[in-house]
Amino acid sequence: MTIRRVGFIGLGIMGGPMAANLLAAGYELTVWNRTAAKAEPLAAAGARVAGSPAEVAAASELTFTCVTASADVEAVVLGPGGVIDGAAPGSIVVDCSTIAPATARKVHAQLAERGVAALDAPVSGGDVGAKAGTLAIMVGGDAETFERALPVLRAIGKTIVHVGPPGAGQVVKLCNQVAGGLNLLAMAEAISLCRRSGVDPAKMLEVVSAGAAGSWMLQHLGPRAVAGDFAPGFMVDLMQKDLGLVLDAAHETHTPLPGSALVRQLFEMLQARGRGRDGTQAIVEALALLAGETG
Amino acid sequence: MTIRRVGFIGLGIMGGPMAANLLAAGYELTVWNRTAAKAEPLAAAGARVAGSPAEVAAASELTFTCVTASADVEAVVLGPGGVIDGAAPGSIVVDCSTIAPATARKVHAQLAERGVAALDAPVSGGDVGAKAGTLAIMVGGDAETFERALPVLRAIGKTIVHVGPPGAGQVVKLCNQVAGGLNLLAMAEAISLCRRSGVDPAKMLEVVSAGAAGSWMLQHLGPRAVAGDFAPGFMVDLMQKDLGLVLDAAHETHTPLPGSALVRQLFEMLQARGRGRDGTQAIVEALALLAGETG
Amino acid sequence: MTIRRVGFIGLGIMGGPMAANLLAAGYELTVWNRTAAKAEPLAAAGARVAGSPAEVAAASELTFTCVTASADVEAVVLGPGGVIDGAAPGSIVVDCSTIAPATARKVHAQLAERGVAALDAPVSGGDVGAKAGTLAIMVGGDAETFERALPVLRAIGKTIVHVGPPGAGQVVKLCNQVAGGLNLLAMAEAISLCRRSGVDPAKMLEVVSAGAAGSWMLQHLGPRAVAGDFAPGFMVDLMQKDLGLVLDAAHETHTPLPGSALVRQLFEMLQARGRGRDGTQAIVEALALLAGETG
Amino acid sequence: MTIRRVGFIGLGIMGGPMAANLLAAGYELTVWNRTAAKAEPLAAAGARVAGSPAEVAAASELTFTCVTASADVEAVVLGPGGVIDGAAPGSIVVDCSTIAPATARKVHAQLAERGVAALDAPVSGGDVGAKAGTLAIMVGGDAETFERALPVLRAIGKTIVHVGPPGAGQVVKLCNQVAGGLNLLAMAEAISLCRRSGVDPAKMLEVVSAGAAGSWMLQHLGPRAVAGDFAPGFMVDLMQKDLGLVLDAAHETHTPLPGSALVRQLFEMLQARGRGRDGTQAIVEALALLAGETG
Repeated sequence: MTIRRVGFIGLGIMGGPMAANLLAAGYELTVWNRTAAKAEPLAAAGARVAGSPAEVAAASELTFTCVTASADVEAVVLGPGGVIDGAAPGSIVVDCSTIAPATARKVHAQLAERGVAALDAPVSGGDVGAKAGTLAIMVGGDAETFERALPVLRAIGKTIVHVGPPGAGQVVKLCNQVAGGLNLLAMAEAISLCRRSGVDPAKMLEVVSAGAAGSWMLQHLGPRAVAGDFAPGFMVDLMQKDLGLVLDAAHETHTPLPGSALVRQLFEMLQARGRGRDGTQAIVEALALLAGETG
Repeated sequence: MTIRRVGFIGLGIMGGPMAANLLAAGYELTVWNRTAAKAEPLAAAGARVAGSPAEVAAASELTFTCVTASADVEAVVLGPGGVIDGAAPGSIVVDCSTIAPATARKVHAQLAERGVAALDAPVSGGDVGAKAGTLAIMVGGDAETFERALPVLRAIGKTIVHVGPPGAGQVVKLCNQVAGGLNLLAMAEAISLCRRSGVDPAKMLEVVSAGAAGSWMLQHLGPRAVAGDFAPGFMVDLMQKDLGLVLDAAHETHTPLPGSALVRQLFEMLQARGRGRDGTQAIVEALALLAGETG
Repeated sequence: MTIRRVGFIGLGIMGGPMAANLLAAGYELTVWNRTAAKAEPLAAAGARVAGSPAEVAAASELTFTCVTASADVEAVVLGPGGVIDGAAPGSIVVDCSTIAPATARKVHAQLAERGVAALDAPVSGGDVGAKAGTLAIMVGGDAETFERALPVLRAIGKTIVHVGPPGAGQVVKLCNQVAGGLNLLAMAEAISLCRRSGVDPAKMLEVVSAGAAGSWMLQHLGPRAVAGDFAPGFMVDLMQKDLGLVLDAAHETHTPLPGSALVRQLFEMLQARGRGRDGTQAIVEALALLAGETG
Repeated sequence: MTIRRVGFIGLGIMGGPMAANLLAAGYELTVWNRTAAKAEPLAAAGARVAGSPAEVAAASELTFTCVTASADVEAVVLGPGGVIDGAAPGSIVVDCSTIAPATARKVHAQLAERGVAALDAPVSGGDVGAKAGTLAIMVGGDAETFERALPVLRAIGKTIVHVGPPGAGQVVKLCNQVAGGLNLLAMAEAISLCRRSGVDPAKMLEVVSAGAAGSWMLQHLGPRAVAGDFAPGFMVDLMQKDLGLVLDAAHETHTPLPGSALVRQLFEMLQARGRGRDGTQAIVEALALLAGETG
């Protein structure tokens, strides 16, 4: 009962290379993308291009979706011509988008009514990880479905953890963004204090990264932030989308997250200046603006 | 001109083991502590006990101070019977306390008038690092003094970086506390959102620690925070002392640090409940209190 | 061309007494409410009860809507059987709900396509003002429609200001909630500092209310907050709904509002404890919780 | 036992006109100022100029001090040649400066040891109120001293309230600054949201000032802020000095004040741009900077 036929819906910056890795791993791949042109490289490499998400699902034992927002997932999975119209009972739908946990649970429930299993499986690691097949994947859903899907997931990711029931994958992804956002603020405030005190921030990064205040962000994005290299990486606009999901999810359970709320307001500063497509390390610029350093 | 005679003033949780390491490294050690009893183990191991900071300095080519606050450093270095009264021209004073950069610069300047060199050399790594001799040391002062002192510093620390002119060591230490404080908040908000969403925080830590949102705090203190183990490590009261220094130093250059200001207010919650001697990972309790989880 | 026939949709805590005032002012009133029973007192007093929003609009020269959220307004105005299906060209729709400015503009635009004029006219003053006919009304729309509607609005409000084009009424209402929320926080922090410093907050309110730090909230809700009287007034749950609209609207134009974001997080504390139906002055309890005063 | 001989130490923007009002009210006035020239107008009007604070106190039944900071009060009252060296047992010292409650209590205690009574009596109302003799005065101390001093206080203030024991006057003044600071933020966020949403803020102020979100700040400083008139009033630098006292006093009792902490960080933005001598309504500029509106 090894899965051979795999579908992929959403061939963007993340989904494109993920689908390519599945093809390279030998799966029979059927794909669909809203903008059809993006499917061409995969077609050239041997993938079938379907006419709708439903057709993808009909052709696949396991169908991935990897789109932007909650509404997009609802459209391609539950909408007219969506995955739900084509997926056979016993097949699996794996959503790799970052969306509201509540939407993920709704997708699970509606697919379950048709006998279709689902996993919410948001990823971390960026386009670099998507290309390299080294994504971290946080998976929500039942254990049996996780075990069935695991061999396929290994074609696209490295750290693959079953974190809990339906929606839990999205919750953990949102926790990841909470921690990442505040670690970025930590980096930015440390750099701002350092600079304004007349001390070379590169020296500061060298010591601080090595100790108890170290973080991935400080180590990897700190030097870029100090050098004024704001190429993404992960874009401010996407972080803001995710922090919006974070605060909405937190509001559902009335969980105060004052730090995350603050981080979101600081990223607004960058979006207000048309810098939403900068990498998130540009938060150092928000702190510099606070301190009157730039305009 | 190798330094052989070393002094140590301030034999607390950090200073005690640091002095012991110097003794073990073969230095002729003279010590002083406000509470004399704390000098006894070192005396038993071969250190001389002096009657005042001035006497320590008179007997030493290099004198360490390791006390709590800016006022303490001023007292033992610049006050009556202080280091400045005994230190010979050409000798070196190394202050390992975490204090205001402005005070550090004042100490440098007043010692310089007597021909005494100084380094501000706050440390990171806790009592564990102090005992193991693996502290990170952030050193401010001139390059020549740093080079002369370096062999001695190697007896107590592992990552030893000359970060800039007088006061720069303290600046970098404060940056370290900024980053550490916000990384702790990152950990606490991620755990709070996870728990309140019904997902096992241990699973979350496993994935998130491994990726771009990972940090030393998340990896090392996250599991303790989840387990309800609030033993220090680094105490809330000391973090609050340091965040006070951070905000004062930032105010001098009018550097807004809204995240650090918020972290300080959240630690007030713990101090208000008499939990100032808990480890800083107890910040998860502040977040739990916000969410109405405990009283 | 004086308006005589008026409709009212949404007969809740606010809408019920507003409709009653219109009836008392001599207008021929047609009403509709989702829960029909709420229309009975008005029917007894002479109002006609219609079977749908469309029927209300068909019978009226000017139709009020006064419901809870953006989705409710869309449903009763633009949905099937909605106002838009019954309203005659040249008639006016006045929405008194507090909703997203973007939704208000959408309602204006779709009604305009049918030749129906619209005003967004959110109100302030609470159920007390609704009963007394003394509401403040912030009106967005074109000047001519405002002038035509003004005599009718005078039956329900006292301070009636045309603040700008479609959506402007909602914008001003959201500004009102921003200011009100932060004035509440001002009150709460002043009371908390006063109490914790051992000083009688009633004395503090007496002096502070009279001077440059005075506000309506401090003067009217301060004494209730000090006395532990948390009866609404305006409920925490509704303030949170409105602060959600505020932050969404601010995000559209990328306008950082760090204070409002903080206020929202503090009100989460009360909602987390099941106190969403308390009056907003209960924010003093959030500050007391921060300070460890209660559980 | 009516008090006739009054002293005044500290003849600045506030103290100068307060002393003039005492002279105009018929009191025999002795004055001292660090910069002697400031005493000349009062000397010309009939005041005696003393050579030290001690001489002022020796000549007076009641001595006012009105200086800038805690250290200044300690110097002129408790320092060499200070009030304490000249004040007769049974005389009264009234400090109108805004200082730390802890310092006020220390002054009370040390004067009491010499049999000298004290009141901490910070004022509100600005230079306008000082000139007009209409200040609000928040008085801490014992009731008997308050009653004895009251007739004299009436020469300089209008709302004069005995708020509690020694230090309570300062506590209430700090509460006043907490409320004032957050009311200013309320004003600034409301104006920022209004402007960015394309609505005329003058219209917004008109409606909002009249209702439950109204405040003295919104009504009196709102129009100036909208007009770009940043003349003080009360300067940003002084507000920051007072917010520093607020957060220090709050830290003593571990009282979290997250809103006040945020306000302080936003005023840092103005100080960082050299605008510390603007009026506090310039906080609208901080919000405009956050939103990328100006540089």
